[in-house]
Formats: sequence, C-alpha cells, structure tokens
Amino acid sequence: MPDVRKIVIIGGGACGPKAAARIRRLDPTASITMVQDETMVSYAGCGLPYFISGMVKARTELIVRDAAAFKKIYNVDVWLKTRAERIDRTAHKVQVTRLDDNATRLLEYDKLVISTGAHPVVPPIEGIDLKGIHILKRVPDAEEIIALINAATRKKAVIVGAGLIGVEMAEALTARGFEVTVVEALDRVLASLLDEEISDITAKHMTDKGVKLKLGQKIVSFAGVDGQVRSATTDKNEVLECDLAIVAIGIRPDTKLASEAGLKLGRFGDIEVNNHMQTSDPDIYAGGDCVASLNIISGQKEFVPLGSTANKHGHVIANNICGIDDTFPGIVGTSCVKILDFNVGRTGLGEKQARELGHDVAVALVPGPDKPEYYAGSSEIIIKLIVDSRTRKILGGQGTGPGDVIKRIDVLATAITMGMTVDALANLDLAYAPPYNTALDVLHHAANLVINKIAGRAQSIRPAELKEKLARNEDFTLLDVRTHLEADKVSLEKPQTQLLPLTKVTSDVEKFPKDKEIVTLCRRGQRAYQAACTLKAAGVNNVKFVEGGLTCWCGEVSGTPLI
Amino acid sequence: MPDVRKIVIIGGGACGPKAAARIRRLDPTASITMVQDETMVSYAGCGLPYFISGMVKARTELIVRDAAAFKKIYNVDVWLKTRAERIDRTAHKVQVTRLDDNATRLLEYDKLVISTGAHPVVPPIEGIDLKGIHILKRVPDAEEIIALINAATRKKAVIVGAGLIGVEMAEALTARGFEVTVVEALDRVLASLLDEEISDITAKHMTDKGVKLKLGQKIVSFAGVDGQVRSATTDKNEVLECDLAIVAIGIRPDTKLASEAGLKLGRFGDIEVNNHMQTSDPDIYAGGDCVASLNIISGQKEFVPLGSTANKHGHVIANNICGIDDTFPGIVGTSCVKILDFNVGRTGLGEKQARELGHDVAVALVPGPDKPEYYAGSSEIIIKLIVDSRTRKILGGQGTGPGDVIKRIDVLATAITMGMTVDALANLDLAYAPPYNTALDVLHHAANLVINKIAGRAQSIRPAELKEKLARNEDFTLLDVRTHLEADKVSLEKPQTQLLPLTKVTSDVEKFPKDKEIVTLCRRGQRAYQAACTLKAAGVNNVKFVEGGLTCWCGEVSGTPLI
Repeated sequence: MPDVRKIVIIGGGACGPKAAARIRRLDPTASITMVQDETMVSYAGCGLPYFISGMVKARTELIVRDAAAFKKIYNVDVWLKTRAERIDRTAHKVQVTRLDDNATRLLEYDKLVISTGAHPVVPPIEGIDLKGIHILKRVPDAEEIIALINAATRKKAVIVGAGLIGVEMAEALTARGFEVTVVEALDRVLASLLDEEISDITAKHMTDKGVKLKLGQKIVSFAGVDGQVRSATTDKNEVLECDLAIVAIGIRPDTKLASEAGLKLGRFGDIEVNNHMQTSDPDIYAGGDCVASLNIISGQKEFVPLGSTANKHGHVIANNICGIDDTFPGIVGTSCVKILDFNVGRTGLGEKQARELGHDVAVALVPGPDKPEYYAGSSEIIIKLIVDSRTRKILGGQGTGPGDVIKRIDVLATAITMGMTVDALANLDLAYAPPYNTALDVLHHAANLVINKIAGRAQSIRPAELKEKLARNEDFTLLDVRTHLEADKVSLEKPQTQLLPLTKVTSDVEKFPKDKEIVTLCRRGQRAYQAACTLKAAGVNNVKFVEGGLTCWCGEVSGTPLI
Repeated sequence: MPDVRKIVIIGGGACGPKAAARIRRLDPTASITMVQDETMVSYAGCGLPYFISGMVKARTELIVRDAAAFKKIYNVDVWLKTRAERIDRTAHKVQVTRLDDNATRLLEYDKLVISTGAHPVVPPIEGIDLKGIHILKRVPDAEEIIALINAATRKKAVIVGAGLIGVEMAEALTARGFEVTVVEALDRVLASLLDEEISDITAKHMTDKGVKLKLGQKIVSFAGVDGQVRSATTDKNEVLECDLAIVAIGIRPDTKLASEAGLKLGRFGDIEVNNHMQTSDPDIYAGGDCVASLNIISGQKEFVPLGSTANKHGHVIANNICGIDDTFPGIVGTSCVKILDFNVGRTGLGEKQARELGHDVAVALVPGPDKPEYYAGSSEIIIKLIVDSRTRKILGGQGTGPGDVIKRIDVLATAITMGMTVDALANLDLAYAPPYNTALDVLHHAANLVINKIAGRAQSIRPAELKEKLARNEDFTLLDVRTHLEADKVSLEKPQTQLLPLTKVTSDVEKFPKDKEIVTLCRRGQRAYQAACTLKAAGVNNVKFVEGGLTCWCGEVSGTPLI
C-alpha cells in the first residue's frame, strides 16, 4: 500500500466537495481535508434566488451533503468557519485560521485543490453601506435578503445589474410582490450573453410583466433614512425609491490566496490552469468559479462561472490527483435563465463575437411553436442561429420565449461541440411526437433559412432594421400578408402598411409596381418569405421579408402583442 | 426561361405537400399537380390520437393547409379523391381515377414524386370485420372511432399491439374513460423501440395507471352481437370484453403503384431510394412513409415511418428536382411517445442490436431528477446509455419517466449523429440553471458511470439480475444503504435484505465478512455505488451495486413504489 497521501481542498462550494468525494472513491486511504470559510459546504448556491422567492422553504433543501455526512460517508475532514490564509508551496503547507478563535494551524499537503469561488463586485458608490443594500452569494446573504423583504414596507426594489443574478432576482422579488426596477449600465439585459434581438424580446417580456428597466444607466448614489436605504439615483438623475437593493453587476474570481502564493493568473484575474486543471504549480489544482475555461469554439479562455462547470472541474481534478489522466476539454459558453414566464438560453458564439473572430456569419431568426398548436400547452419559442457561411458550421444559438427553449439550446450546444454543419442540423433526427415538438422543429426551420440565405435564395431584413426604416420614414410598401382576422388583433399601422393576405398575393401579383421596394411581413416570417418568393418570381425587383415577423417585433403595435 | 416543367406528386400527407411548396419557391413556373385519394391534404396525421382523446376539438385544427390554399398560395393543383392507378414510366404518364365518378385521366410528368405513405396491417383474425374494430390512419378513421367511443356503453376497449400507435391510443382511450386492455404478441411494450429495462418501467407505469397489459399474447378471434364486437379472445384463451378494438400491430409501406411500375423495392417492401431520394427510375423520387431510411449508426436501412422524416424527405426531393444537389443523410432511429404521465424516448441502437452488430457494449442505467429536487415540478427521469467500450462512442440512449426525458434524447440523438464519445458527453456544456436541470445532468452521471464501468472501477448488476438472484434464493446480503425514513416508505423485504444507511457503512465496514457476496441497493444507485467502493476498499471481495436502484425496480415492493 502506498503512503497515505495528504489532499487539502480549499473551498467547499461545488468543485471542492465533488473532488473530495471522487478522490475518496478512487483512493480509500488518502487523508482528505476540506477547508471552508463558511458554516456549510456543498450547497446549491444556484438555488438561492428560489429560496428568496419563497419556492424553496428551508435552507436545508439546498444542502447536498453537510460536513458531518462528508466525514461519515467519505471520511473527509471538513473544517468549517476556517479560512486558508497562506500557501507555502515550498514546504507544501497551507496556513489556516479558525474564524471563531483566530487559532492558526498548518496543513500539510501532497496535492492541493483551490476552489475558492468568486465574489460579487461591489462598486464604490455613495451610500453603498446602507442597510437594505445587499449582494447575493451565500446562504446567509439570502437569509438577510429574506429578512429585508419581510421588513420592507414600500415593497420597492432596485436591482443593479441585468446579468444572470440580476434577472433571477428580478423574478424572485416580483414573486415576493415587489415593484422591481433593474438598472443596467449596458444598453440591454443579459448583454454579455444575448445578441440584441433575443435580449430585446426578453426585455420586452420583463417590462410587460411589470419589471421596470433602466438600460444604459448607472446608479451613482444611494440615499437613506436612519441608515436604511430609501432611494437610488442614476447617472441620468432618475431617483428610484426602494427599500431593498440588490447589487449584481458581476463577479470576480477569488484568487488572493493563489496570487499571493505566486501562482500564475489569467486575464480575468482567474487562476490559470491547463486542461488537467493544474495550476502553474503541478501539485496545485484549481477549479470552479476561481478559474476561467477554454471556449472550444472561440479558442479563447472565458470566465463563465457556473455550478455545472465547477462540478466537472472537481471530477477531472480528482481523476488527475488519483493517477487517472483526464482533461477538461472546455466549454461552449452555454447559459440559461428563467425570467418570469420566459425561458432564455444561449450557446456558442454571439453574432458580434463571431464576426470579431473573423467568421463569415449567416444568421436566422425564427419563431415557432415548441409543439403543434393543436397540442395543449403549445408555446412560442424564438431561436437565433449563427453559422459560419464558409465552413457551414454552427457557431452559436440563442433563444427566448415562453416555450421549451432550453431543449433547443442543449441540442445546439451538443451540435456546436461536435462541429455540426447547418446542413446536418437541417436533417437532424430529433425526437418527434406532438407532445414534444412540431414535425419540423424550429431548429430545422432555422437551419433551412440559414441555408437559403447563404445560397442567396432568401433576402430578409431584421425587425430592428424595419424599425429603422420606419423611423426614417422611408418610401416602401410594408406588405402585411396575414389574414384580416390576425390584422384586426394586432398590426403595425404605418403609412407604408398594406394588408394583403398571402392567399391573395399570387392572384394580385401583377398589380405591384416592379421597382418599388416591398418588405413583406407576417406573424413569424414563413408566409412573408413565401410572399417574397412569389413577388420576386413575378418580377418585383426589390423585395425582402421581415425575419421573425411580428412575433419578434419589439416596437409599438396597435392591438395586443403576439408574445 | 426554361420550358415549364411538369411535376406530379402522388400523395398529400406530409412529404408531398412539403415537396410541392418547396418546388414552387424554387421554380415559379413549373406545373405542379398533387394527387390525393383522400378528401384532404397536408394534415397532421400524428395528431389523430389527440383528436380521439378530446384534446383537439375539431378536425380543422389538424389541417396545415387545405387544397384551396395550395392553389391560391403555391399555384399547385390538388386533385382530391383521386387515385393514381398506374405509372407509365416510358411515356412519363400517370393514370389517375377520380373516385366520385371513376373518370380516368393521364397526367404527364417530367419528374414524379411518390409519397403514398403506409397502411396499417390488419391481421386475418376471425371476426375482424365486426363493427367496433378499427384501424387508425386517416381523419375519417378518427371520426369513426370517436363515434364508436360515444356509442360505447361498457367503455371497454382492446388495443391490439403495443407499438407507438397502440400506446398513444391506450392514453387516448383512458382519457375518454375507457377501461383499456393492450394485447401485444411480444413480451414487452414498445418492443421494437425499447430495451427491456426501459420498456418494463414504462409498462409498470401503464399498469399503475389502470391500463391492462396482456404481453406475449395474440388475439385469435373477435366475437360480437348483431355485428358489433363484444369480446376478443387471446391465444391463452383469455376473453376480453370490449365494445371497441383498435388494431395497431404495425404499418407497411404503400408501394403497390411503385411495384407495378417496376421500381425496385427494399426488404421492408419499401420503395428503394438513394440518398437523393431518387428511385431506381431517375425521374421518379419517393419519400415519406413509403420508403425506408438509412440508419447512420447501424449502416442499415430501417423502416421508421415518421412525419418528421417525411417532411425532410419532401425538402430534399424538391431541392433535387429543382437542380439543387441535396442528400438525406439518414436517421439515427429517434422516436418518442407520451404515455399517460410518462415521457418515453429512444435514439441510436438498442443494446441487443448493438451487440448483434459486433460492438463491445457498455451500458449504464441512471435515474435522477430532471431538475433539482428543491425546484418546483422536479420529476424523475431514467436514462439508459449504450456505448461502444472500444471506440468509446455513444451508440444509443433510451429514457422513460415523468420528467423531461425527451430533451435528453434529443441531446443524445445529436451526439450520436456526430460520433460523440462518452468522455465528451461527461463534460458536455449543457445549459444549466435550476429551472431546467441539475448541475450535473443525468446524462453526465450516465456517462461517468459508463466510463467507470469500462475502466473496471464500478461493478454493478441490473435490477432484473437482482430479481433473478432473489428468485433463485441465492445466499448473499442485499445491503440497503438508504435511510430508515426511506426504508419505512418502501423497501424490498427479502431474507437477504439488511438495512444500513450509507452514513453507517464506513464505521461498520469491518463487521462485514470479506468473502460473502454483497449487493448494495439505494434509491437511484449513487449511494449504493459509494457503499460498494467503501466495502471494496475495506477488503470485501465480492460486492456489486444495483444500477438504477429501487427506482428502476419493477418487481413487488413493500410500500409505495418510488415512481
């Protein structure tokens, strides 16, 4: 039997506990110690917004395994409320301090795992220390926020930042009956995740459901009474009343310990690791939210802290520590979030990022029902597909809507990981039955539209381009080819608008002047595409259809918006 | 401009209308005629069970586009109630008969599309012509079945065949308040789709919900009163009362026309096509349910008639007819079906098929929640993963359960299509957020289990093997490592059973004799695997865990089954 090896793990969120359990299964005799500066380990931090919303009733529901179970099941020593202060790489020792009594101790290691996670950025704004202003990272944060919710009298909240945590908290506080205002410095919600179209549709849903959005604005100060926050002021001098404010402008890797130990850091301040999750010191591994991951598609490291990735890191680290050669191949940048009644996701590259990386980009914006409209519960999804028109490989995909978006994102994540072409996607043998999807899925339609666009068979404009053309009051015909019944419910009533149902386009086609610009519009884009084909075949020279149709239109309408 | 080309399409289900619309978009001037022996075209045949169940209220909801719309929008002539009788390949003509008056006519074609679909097999059983016995293919079938439902006084139905249509009809008739008995000649439900484990769990759900299953039995006769069916008798002499019987033992391609025209047929009686969907006559294309498709994974043609595949065929046919070189790459054998509260799906090869094709097969059976158990609506899914242990490529996947199985099947279908290895699946960057899945998805766990099994790190038995061991009353310890609370609710009370919660296994490990066989059991397999690791590390030689745990156990239990 080999010498008992000493493994020290710093951090007990997701990566650390995963590594600890796996190491134990692979190595019955190793001494494993996990050091954690909190009062608990191995809990579902991602579940905190649902604890705050009231869906999760007790903190215990979020705990995967407590410290006692780690000892009993895995014979892992868990030191709670203990902070790792310093790593002595030469001596292979970690100095730790017990927070209760400041006692210090040195822990020897043969292999060290750093999984210290990340911390929310708190901007140095005037009044930031007022009571009622909170970040969300750990269970006690959530409990303090719940206490603030219960104490709030005006039920008005400001959320600073429209990233993943920001929009999850917008949902949670809406569920708690708060009037929620989200302030975001960038010009759209989930800006680092979503392209403009998908972001705008998502933002529209948030405002439709009562969340106030202040985009392109920053909070410059908080003001309070008796030490309790009462309002926030933006750089546009808007004063937002609130008795609760959540700061969620981003998170940064916790790498002070690693940095002070002289480990190499990456450009996000992350602990640099190779694909074995090994730091610049071969006896020290790092994983979870304190490292960045290689994006397989861009070839660049990205900082995408997620519990899913952290678990995979922990598994790979354990394997390598125990002599099983294993690598973490990287990510494709998949993220998702539920925001009120919408499911929102993305994977791969965004359109702008793809262009910046030098790709010839072709995109399609395609809405559709997630299952046949005759089937109960059928709901709209809107998919944007991003393809390299030269290699024909899928580069990215995004989606939003009340329907089952995330299934399509997972399919695209898998496709992108494997280098699938848009042609293969068009014929992909996805599971088909009416309870689950339409005979041709929205993904198939999106693939076919990209193929038609690359081949020059489909000329389209995006809803945002239509908006600009209308704003400039350009001279063109906006040909709405929906039925009268549909148009009565909702329409774009512009001087350029002309209603002619698709069934009349063929018979009336000769009435159209050949040289006037025509933009065709329908509910989702398919009929408008057909109308454009018919008009073009009849010799109309300048005709395009609006991709995504009225479903993806985010401007004003007469009537009730489609989603 | 080229001469106006003449395209004739025989059959108006899914492939034909898809081809017609696409041809029109690609070729404004072609003459397109679609011949259909029914009263309608382009309807969702897959939706008929939901029309029968009452979810879909009117036949019009199932119609995608009617014949008039095809004329108005696409300028396609649709000849309803017209049967194609004969193809004269030399003269390039199709002889058609109008069913109303038997008038015949010859239709010239440059290119011909055969999409004649398939027909249900009706076995020559005594009494098969009695009123109340029906097949399901077309809208009028559904309407006649609805009339029979409304007229039924005893509300007892027999379904002959437990394939896709059979189980969908079991659901539909259960929804209509019928007592349903499904009779299936093979020894399990969905036998051509599902491996034993997944089929058995699905069958258990059906019986739990009140559907009676008669497996390994055939109906040998029907008996009636006044021409109306009253009972069916099986080859085991069981007499099943019924006032309604649905015959759904399989479907066969409708290829009489093609066969008589001398076109080459395949081994399923299908019209043989190349990957351009071209028959042995280069001017004749065929697609939809009358052709077989290449299974990309097995390299063999398979007859898997599905509306999804038919639509893709139609698209590829249209492209090729219009001079765009396009191929249909094939299928991976993906199918899914909702049966009562369970979602059931499969893709790729089944375990037995994979072995027959010469693969070294490794499998994993892994249940788990489809999202975190703290999140509202979390439901169980059970995934079986089938991998080639030499190439490490994923060969197949199957799933069942009340949770979101189909998302996982679609991910696997995509992975299998692209030749993904189990190692890549273990680290696949699937979208993670609590409303959608757990940090490590069941797919990740399944991949890791297969990897551990291939490496010899995990020794397991399947629930069915445990059943056999117990039936033989073998001498071993069945170590249930769940908590007392869990065991109080449901357990396997056998002489071999010993309860020892996982948290006690480590401390009590020395009490176990080293040479007695131990089989560990828990709810889903994970704790049992951990216990097996702990026991093995302590020198217990013969220890295995039950894959899938009690969740996948289909035998008797004391208490309430887990799913």
